[in-house]
Amino acid sequence: MARVYNFSAGPSMLPEQVLKTAAAEMLDYKGSGQSVMEMSHRSKWFDDIIKEAEALMRELYKIPDNYKVLFLQGGASAQFSAIPLNFMNGSGKADYIITGQWAKKAFQEAQKYGDVKAVASSADKTFSYIPKTKAEDFREDADYVYICMNNTIYGTVYKELPPVGDKVLIADVSSCALSEPLDISKFGMVYFGAQKNVAPAGLVVAIIREDLLGNARDITPVMMNYKIQADAESLYNTPPCYTIYICKLVLEWLKANGGLDAMKERNEKKAKLLYDFLDNSKMFRGTVVPEDRSLMNVPFVTDDDELNAKFVKEATEAGLVNLKGHRTVGGMRASIYNAMPYEGVEKLVEFMAEFEKANS
Amino acid sequence: MARVYNFSAGPSMLPEQVLKTAAAEMLDYKGSGQSVMEMSHRSKWFDDIIKEAEALMRELYKIPDNYKVLFLQGGASAQFSAIPLNFMNGSGKADYIITGQWAKKAFQEAQKYGDVKAVASSADKTFSYIPKTKAEDFREDADYVYICMNNTIYGTVYKELPPVGDKVLIADVSSCALSEPLDISKFGMVYFGAQKNVAPAGLVVAIIREDLLGNARDITPVMMNYKIQADAESLYNTPPCYTIYICKLVLEWLKANGGLDAMKERNEKKAKLLYDFLDNSKMFRGTVVPEDRSLMNVPFVTDDDELNAKFVKEATEAGLVNLKGHRTVGGMRASIYNAMPYEGVEKLVEFMAEFEKANS
Repeated sequence: MARVYNFSAGPSMLPEQVLKTAAAEMLDYKGSGQSVMEMSHRSKWFDDIIKEAEALMRELYKIPDNYKVLFLQGGASAQFSAIPLNFMNGSGKADYIITGQWAKKAFQEAQKYGDVKAVASSADKTFSYIPKTKAEDFREDADYVYICMNNTIYGTVYKELPPVGDKVLIADVSSCALSEPLDISKFGMVYFGAQKNVAPAGLVVAIIREDLLGNARDITPVMMNYKIQADAESLYNTPPCYTIYICKLVLEWLKANGGLDAMKERNEKKAKLLYDFLDNSKMFRGTVVPEDRSLMNVPFVTDDDELNAKFVKEATEAGLVNLKGHRTVGGMRASIYNAMPYEGVEKLVEFMAEFEKANS
Repeated sequence: MARVYNFSAGPSMLPEQVLKTAAAEMLDYKGSGQSVMEMSHRSKWFDDIIKEAEALMRELYKIPDNYKVLFLQGGASAQFSAIPLNFMNGSGKADYIITGQWAKKAFQEAQKYGDVKAVASSADKTFSYIPKTKAEDFREDADYVYICMNNTIYGTVYKELPPVGDKVLIADVSSCALSEPLDISKFGMVYFGAQKNVAPAGLVVAIIREDLLGNARDITPVMMNYKIQADAESLYNTPPCYTIYICKLVLEWLKANGGLDAMKERNEKKAKLLYDFLDNSKMFRGTVVPEDRSLMNVPFVTDDDELNAKFVKEATEAGLVNLKGHRTVGGMRASIYNAMPYEGVEKLVEFMAEFEKANS
């Protein structure tokens, strides 16, 4: 079968060039006589790969020198525990903003370890907006404030950061990672599961301000201690080497395609095409308030569940796959990450127009 | 360059056929129009992959029905914490046998969570043997007894299990996984990092007796709670999908090549060739007592550090790579896992004979 346009929320499309390079290098990486899957993580070959991945990440995100870049495992869900274990070490308090299922899971997990407050939530309207917060909403002595920047399931994104003052801000940016520039210096920690914009599943990248490291609780599992991982340069034990290699290839592709400014422009253009169509359609509508719309995840519905199901089925047959909404919310969702070409969104919009015509 | 014979202790050689299949399926897995790296972990495609991997694991290891098979992340080091957090839940005591660096790390990590005793150790002779234990060495009320079955760095293996009676025995079998049959019913839990015999790095397989699940401590990070992982069939969050796919390909290769009985025979033949050479050489000698020699990891030395270095260098030039011993012990080590063909060991032994002749 020809390659499909894959609107999966994650794992998700990778640049075709990256896959071609990976296939070509599978049995012999650059004359090493080995696959990257087979080489020692202590070898010169792999050392070059992980160092290059970090250097590209620093270059693309303009990461300040006082931040560590870690390659970790366990998904965002492992960080839900690691964050309180590493950083809830002053007052033992932390403030969370609840903008969807992932923020809520992080909040619930942190309750195991301290005094956690939900300072705002958009649960009242099925997380279809980002709640506004004021400086006084946050506790003076909170060890950190936690947000989920882009909400994969609900399709919202923070266009402006909450006014946390000089409190430590921690953000899960899994589903908008490397999709546009980000001022890392505003955060204590930024992290992302790689399986959306960056690599296959099985890798988390964490960018952490150095001065926050070194105060993990005694009960912290060794693999969740960020200081230990930082001191070992992500090689405390064997890291997910092959996934880091694919990450490096994706970062090279990003750089060759103009970096994050170009990516932002391209992502805005793709999202505009789809949102404009939704705003003008009589059958389909987006579910998010316009000011908080994500560039990455675009949920939409018709007013008829059967029609939704018919749409997903026929779209799949047309090579537009994984458009079904998250199992907890239904409807449709188009995830249009970096690797989704403009033509993929064009095809989707054309298909939606035809479907609307045929079913009105 | 031609493919080399890679004696790396892990990550390590994979069957060439597996790499060829992975390369061929990279852009389009079985007509899905997607790479396995790109597909949703909730898709039918991936569901088939993970179910097939589990079924093959059960078939090859003859795993009893009352055991769960989990696909996890974080390496063996994450299990060093998860094991006490999940199972040190009765007396709060656990007994460890120290047969090398990995057993020691597991032991040290468990000290965070309870009353841990080192009941035996072979540290006195640089871990060159497996210490003998008697039933009365173990504490009556220990929640479990922990061993590292095959010691990658030192090249020892348990030929007989310690006499733990009806106590729960937990074994790290990372470096001998699927290399020969194993009676799973003798263990409460068997687990292995996949990056030696089974898959690229980034995956741990844990086989756990069902009745032991469900008593994790309150402070257990959600991703380390085996009951939660078991209930979610390893899909609590996004698993390392591509690594699980390669694992499935390796298991298919194992089955096609006769399963674990055939693998044992093949591994014994390879190891015998190398050990026989070492026992007859005047320059090289193995470092492990004969009765505890591993089939997988064969450390050896000459009596001259410069000669060791020269050997490693010239072997590398001859396409026999990663023969340097672990950085903590020096000398040489040949890891001859399932995917190392007999011809690779023949080449090594031939090269050693020539080297001995040229340098005597």
